[in-house]
Amino acid sequence: MKNYKIAILAGDGIGPEITREAVKVLKLIEERNDVSFELMPALFGACAYFATGDAFPQETKDICDSADAILKGPIGLSHEESKNIPIDKQPERGALLPMRRRYNTYANFRPVSLPKELAHFSPLKAEIIGEGIDIIIVRELVGGLYFGEKEMGVNKDGLRYVKETLEYDENQIRQILHQAFKLAGHRKKVLHNIHKSNVLKSSVLWNEILEEVAVEYPEIEVINILVDAAATLLCLKPTQFDVMVMENMFGDILSDQGGGILGSLGLMPSACIGDDKAYYEPSHGSAPDIAGKNIANPYSMIGSVAMMLENSFDMADEAKNVWAAMQGVFADGFSTADLSKPGSGVNMISTIEFGDKVVEKL
Amino acid sequence: MKNYKIAILAGDGIGPEITREAVKVLKLIEERNDVSFELMPALFGACAYFATGDAFPQETKDICDSADAILKGPIGLSHEESKNIPIDKQPERGALLPMRRRYNTYANFRPVSLPKELAHFSPLKAEIIGEGIDIIIVRELVGGLYFGEKEMGVNKDGLRYVKETLEYDENQIRQILHQAFKLAGHRKKVLHNIHKSNVLKSSVLWNEILEEVAVEYPEIEVINILVDAAATLLCLKPTQFDVMVMENMFGDILSDQGGGILGSLGLMPSACIGDDKAYYEPSHGSAPDIAGKNIANPYSMIGSVAMMLENSFDMADEAKNVWAAMQGVFADGFSTADLSKPGSGVNMISTIEFGDKVVEKL
Ligand SMILES: CC(C)[C@H](C(=O)O)[C@@H](O)C(=O)O
Ligand SMILES: CC(C)[C@H](C(=O)O)[C@@H](O)C(=O)O
Repeated sequence: MKNYKIAILAGDGIGPEITREAVKVLKLIEERNDVSFELMPALFGACAYFATGDAFPQETKDICDSADAILKGPIGLSHEESKNIPIDKQPERGALLPMRRRYNTYANFRPVSLPKELAHFSPLKAEIIGEGIDIIIVRELVGGLYFGEKEMGVNKDGLRYVKETLEYDENQIRQILHQAFKLAGHRKKVLHNIHKSNVLKSSVLWNEILEEVAVEYPEIEVINILVDAAATLLCLKPTQFDVMVMENMFGDILSDQGGGILGSLGLMPSACIGDDKAYYEPSHGSAPDIAGKNIANPYSMIGSVAMMLENSFDMADEAKNVWAAMQGVFADGFSTADLSKPGSGVNMISTIEFGDKVVEKL
Repeated sequence: MKNYKIAILAGDGIGPEITREAVKVLKLIEERNDVSFELMPALFGACAYFATGDAFPQETKDICDSADAILKGPIGLSHEESKNIPIDKQPERGALLPMRRRYNTYANFRPVSLPKELAHFSPLKAEIIGEGIDIIIVRELVGGLYFGEKEMGVNKDGLRYVKETLEYDENQIRQILHQAFKLAGHRKKVLHNIHKSNVLKSSVLWNEILEEVAVEYPEIEVINILVDAAATLLCLKPTQFDVMVMENMFGDILSDQGGGILGSLGLMPSACIGDDKAYYEPSHGSAPDIAGKNIANPYSMIGSVAMMLENSFDMADEAKNVWAAMQGVFADGFSTADLSKPGSGVNMISTIEFGDKVVEKL
């Protein structure tokens, strides 16, 4: 029997509600497999800051350090509430980015996936979605503008200024590209490389390394697209993409655009993978406006569990079952209020009921 | 009688074709108004590089310097062809960015506009488009990553690295924000401020200046949205936006996403305005794949003429007529092959025929 320790960071806003449903799924998987999960809850995000003065307290670090995998809910506060926390202690700068840095989770996998049957969720016309959207965005997660030096002050002319750097070295670029090429090899053997080499020197280096790495994957076709053109095409012809790779900031923007074409960020789980540790999280925020109402869809959180099963615990079959169960609940005509407008003909259920139905299907 | 000198930079790819149609419109406007246009054609972009070794030759600079306004077609080559030109001489780094810097055209206005009648062009469902999309993106155009210091080399560990800086000072931020607030004042009095203050210090400074500038425009409501959330919402609910303001790179990506939700970048003209000089250009590239086929739609180029009439020559009424004429041609069921799929029921006409029909309507 395998034993896995899982740190459970429920986070802020809707985090606790959707995490509860994800835990139900983990328990079921545990029951029917030769595996035991030790769940270790810990504070992370604004809740941790208000309880301890630190959004990523030492106790949580210790728990995460000892875990085999980390399941992390969304964190953060509304724009107004954020102002009550000093900038560097806010959930993003005080917890999320330090987590990414601590475990060097450089490879962020974000599925942008919508089976044809769920096309009604999308703002795009049915003919654009065709047989369904099935993209994985591979985003570099620990470099670029996010982690470069930052300087803010008053210059010699007495003007306030800011200066932050976008930095990459060849190793950082190479390691994320290898992940992308490997993934493409398991899928359609086409890799869309998203860059901005007509302006950014970082893209020039990125593309240079890409040409070198590509030699090791002769079976993969590489298609180079400027990031702005990619933003156009993701709306116009999303089905042409399979695996897309890009640097940190581009990945932030395009993956949320991905949530837009699906119809909701609530449909976006993700995996953040380093060489020694991985954590799993929804791609969306903590949605403080709908927190505590039992209407948030737990898809992104349960989907993150599926990604954990596959990547951290080698349980690809159960991962598939989880995806199928969730999509089955939608296909049966059920949904939560955050995803579907009232009166749209779907059968509206709560967060808890959605989780229960997924467990039933499983 | 007013006399205006207009530099005409037809550019690369489809540039010359669509510029020809825009010039037809200028001539008609000239005929029926108390105004004369002196058109001064000049080489700019890859065509200039191949002819003179310089994508923005001195002769073109002189012509632009002496012009009252500049009409610029799209420039650039395909990814493969670009490799035949040294990086710093390529059309973007060798001509476009130097043009923006030379005339300090810091305010880029990009309408993302689709009347309800043209909803069929869009990949979005009719119910998302509702009464029509009518956004203006105000993009800062001469700062940020585009113009910061860039460094590329080998570090002390022997690794190739790259480092580029995103820089702004308070004056740069303030001047673009004033433009955005003023525009919002002439429209719906709502300004969406797009930022990434949970990660970027440049956004922290940006938002700080915004709060100061906002005091001067008490009648404008400001709504702060993270750039990633904006990318989601631009797909899900584009009609909620009216004026959006953002820094250079965000504007590059989101405005092209804007072209995506309209159905084509071919529907995206733009105005690039500095304190002393303005130039007007389509937001799209030179589309080398369809160049010379007489199928590119001249909408973005003729729309750029409309923006020139309004902004540089104080001819707002004629500008309105030009927009109406173009939309009338579409409303009559005509379009070009680049915009509409064959068999979609529209009456397919050529670039030249489209231009002729616009002139007829006018
Ligand atoms: C919360 C924020 C710091 C984060 C990011 O920008 O990476 C989020 O938007 C994401 O995409 O995971
Ligand atoms: C061609 C390129 C340098 C340019 C930019 O990135 O600004 C273009 O994409 C645009 O949006 O005008």
